[in-house]
Amino acid sequence: MTSPPVVGIVGGGQLARMLAEAASPLGIHLRVLAAESDEGAAEIICDVTIGSPDDSQAILDFAQTVDVLTFDHENVDLHALRQLEQSGCAVRPGVKLLEFADKAHQRQRFSEAGLPVPPFLVIDLAQSPTNQALPLQQALEFCAEHADDQGKIVIKASRGGYDGRGVWMLKAEELEGFFAQYTGAPLLLEPKLELQSEVAVLVARNPSGQVAVWPVLETVQVDGMCNEVLLPAALSPELILQAEQIGRQIAELLDAVGVFAVELFVSAQDLLINEIAPRVHNSGHITIEACATSQFSQHLRAILDWPLGPTHMLYPAAVMANVVGVANQDPRVHQGIALHQEAGSHIHLYGKTPRPGRKIGHVSVVGQDLAQCRTSAAVAAAALSSGIASGASPI
Amino acid sequence: MTSPPVVGIVGGGQLARMLAEAASPLGIHLRVLAAESDEGAAEIICDVTIGSPDDSQAILDFAQTVDVLTFDHENVDLHALRQLEQSGCAVRPGVKLLEFADKAHQRQRFSEAGLPVPPFLVIDLAQSPTNQALPLQQALEFCAEHADDQGKIVIKASRGGYDGRGVWMLKAEELEGFFAQYTGAPLLLEPKLELQSEVAVLVARNPSGQVAVWPVLETVQVDGMCNEVLLPAALSPELILQAEQIGRQIAELLDAVGVFAVELFVSAQDLLINEIAPRVHNSGHITIEACATSQFSQHLRAILDWPLGPTHMLYPAAVMANVVGVANQDPRVHQGIALHQEAGSHIHLYGKTPRPGRKIGHVSVVGQDLAQCRTSAAVAAAALSSGIASGASPI
Repeated sequence: MTSPPVVGIVGGGQLARMLAEAASPLGIHLRVLAAESDEGAAEIICDVTIGSPDDSQAILDFAQTVDVLTFDHENVDLHALRQLEQSGCAVRPGVKLLEFADKAHQRQRFSEAGLPVPPFLVIDLAQSPTNQALPLQQALEFCAEHADDQGKIVIKASRGGYDGRGVWMLKAEELEGFFAQYTGAPLLLEPKLELQSEVAVLVARNPSGQVAVWPVLETVQVDGMCNEVLLPAALSPELILQAEQIGRQIAELLDAVGVFAVELFVSAQDLLINEIAPRVHNSGHITIEACATSQFSQHLRAILDWPLGPTHMLYPAAVMANVVGVANQDPRVHQGIALHQEAGSHIHLYGKTPRPGRKIGHVSVVGQDLAQCRTSAAVAAAALSSGIASGASPI
Repeated sequence: MTSPPVVGIVGGGQLARMLAEAASPLGIHLRVLAAESDEGAAEIICDVTIGSPDDSQAILDFAQTVDVLTFDHENVDLHALRQLEQSGCAVRPGVKLLEFADKAHQRQRFSEAGLPVPPFLVIDLAQSPTNQALPLQQALEFCAEHADDQGKIVIKASRGGYDGRGVWMLKAEELEGFFAQYTGAPLLLEPKLELQSEVAVLVARNPSGQVAVWPVLETVQVDGMCNEVLLPAALSPELILQAEQIGRQIAELLDAVGVFAVELFVSAQDLLINEIAPRVHNSGHITIEACATSQFSQHLRAILDWPLGPTHMLYPAAVMANVVGVANQDPRVHQGIALHQEAGSHIHLYGKTPRPGRKIGHVSVVGQDLAQCRTSAAVAAAALSSGIASGASPI
């Protein structure tokens, strides 16, 4: 390149915002394709093209104005991206990785590649809309084999779900009624596993083939939404090694470029791949303070085919807690209260209008002791959400 | 406050840009008053009011639109700021601190307060423009007492100089000719001291009176321009303590609000105050990676009267090297080369058009060993400036 690199991001949410925070010091110019309603990045990315990620012409036009195209989210028009890729445009990650945003697709491919996945069944009701006898029969058989002691299995929409949405827990007798009214993407059925914990492996790869893996992260889920991330994960050295190997294997399998996250179930001392996210990920926000290179800097370095940075931990312990919206409260006026509670906490707000239950920021705390970091992060996150100082906090 | 805080920055250079990088995660909305030619911040601060810091009406109008007013540089209309302060506007730092941007003013006040300063003489040629016999005689007497072995003394313009500009080394016989043609701000005369080193103390204070001091920084000057910053400074524990005490004393003396830097000469095992900079400072850029709270986050916390963050070092050693413009080279296309040389280096580019000798960025390297950090930072900064990989680098 002979002029400063221009990276185009499809989507203007908090991931685009945190990419912008990382791009500025690196001297990278960011341009965003965003809907008018996108809030996260608009405050700090000045170069915004208004358009929908579903509008193939908008994506094709936008791509012509940037050196590299990347994504804030994976709900994009893959057909347009395939066209771009074939015309030689730098789409990073590429379509091969973005296709793995489909939960059914990834489960099938990982299974074929011999990677460890839970038992599963994919059902596409759209294939025979007038006759659902066969899929129902298959689902009942799956249920008979894999239902938990309450008779339930897990059903997930293969696309479009997040933070616990698009996930159902159903009994055999509820399946027929559910299928009759369901009209969305193909369904992925799996057992409700007894989990010891959930972890995530964050991986970066650049087009030159360099791969970097961060220390394995432990994710604490509440109602299907990642609530806390703990570093390091409480996992045996063998499973740590296995998790990292799974991450590297997937990076090669998918010709990954950029950062992606592999979410893993820890069940009966085994690792099973839950799903991957083909982008920077909520579980990786802690890398901003806790690791030598953040996932956001690394993603930009990877998609520009620059050398990747070191990923080691800088502290013995680090915890991220999400900041979630509370009715009639705006965390953007509560920073002073949160910092009074925990002066060493690192606040990250996403510039989003708070709504109850909406993820609008996170807090990171780094230190010597995991339990202490966890308390501090929770206290600071609660103070930000609610504006209420916790009496329990050691000020 | 009941809506997100709006901080207004007068001036849109690299300090405004790095303040913006720190403001985004904290959920602070930044607005900048900038000349059209300002380059540094424009790329990442979307809310820009075009106007001159010398235009009092522009500053008065701008101040009405923000919660707190702060500064990228100190060349501002103090008369307008006094008016604002009297009307109850939050001008931070206040006029009392900004007046100390004048080198003659600060030397006189520090001397009166019993703080350690070099011998000095202030000469204001504008006071008797037609008769310069008296000032010349005073200057000659000062020269007779303090000239170095080459017969030279140092003369500094009290305002407007930076990076070695506005500084002259003159002999007694050159003074008359110099005075005859000089038309600028009052002059500060001082001896050319034999320096062991130069250090800086970075201090933050909020309106509630909380003070935070960073570990003392060693600044390496080349031709009057800070070229490298080393952390920790090679200084005896007694002098470290004394430097910190000087910083705290000045914070109280000036009712400082926000971050300011005290530059100190180390001469004959003594500390002497060179000058203060009433704002975030080039010497403090290393705090972004090396310390628990960066000078930029801390400045924002201080001016909003939020609790200050911890300032301790996160690594045994850290070095910053400035990236300086080289003819026909743009560092914004050299990041890959620099990262290939030093994958662990932290690049900061300011979005400025390169010109030979112009400061357009910096590189920070943190680690275990100061000498190693210093080599790495120099190699990465040179690769960014020139686009040429150093053969000597251990890849």
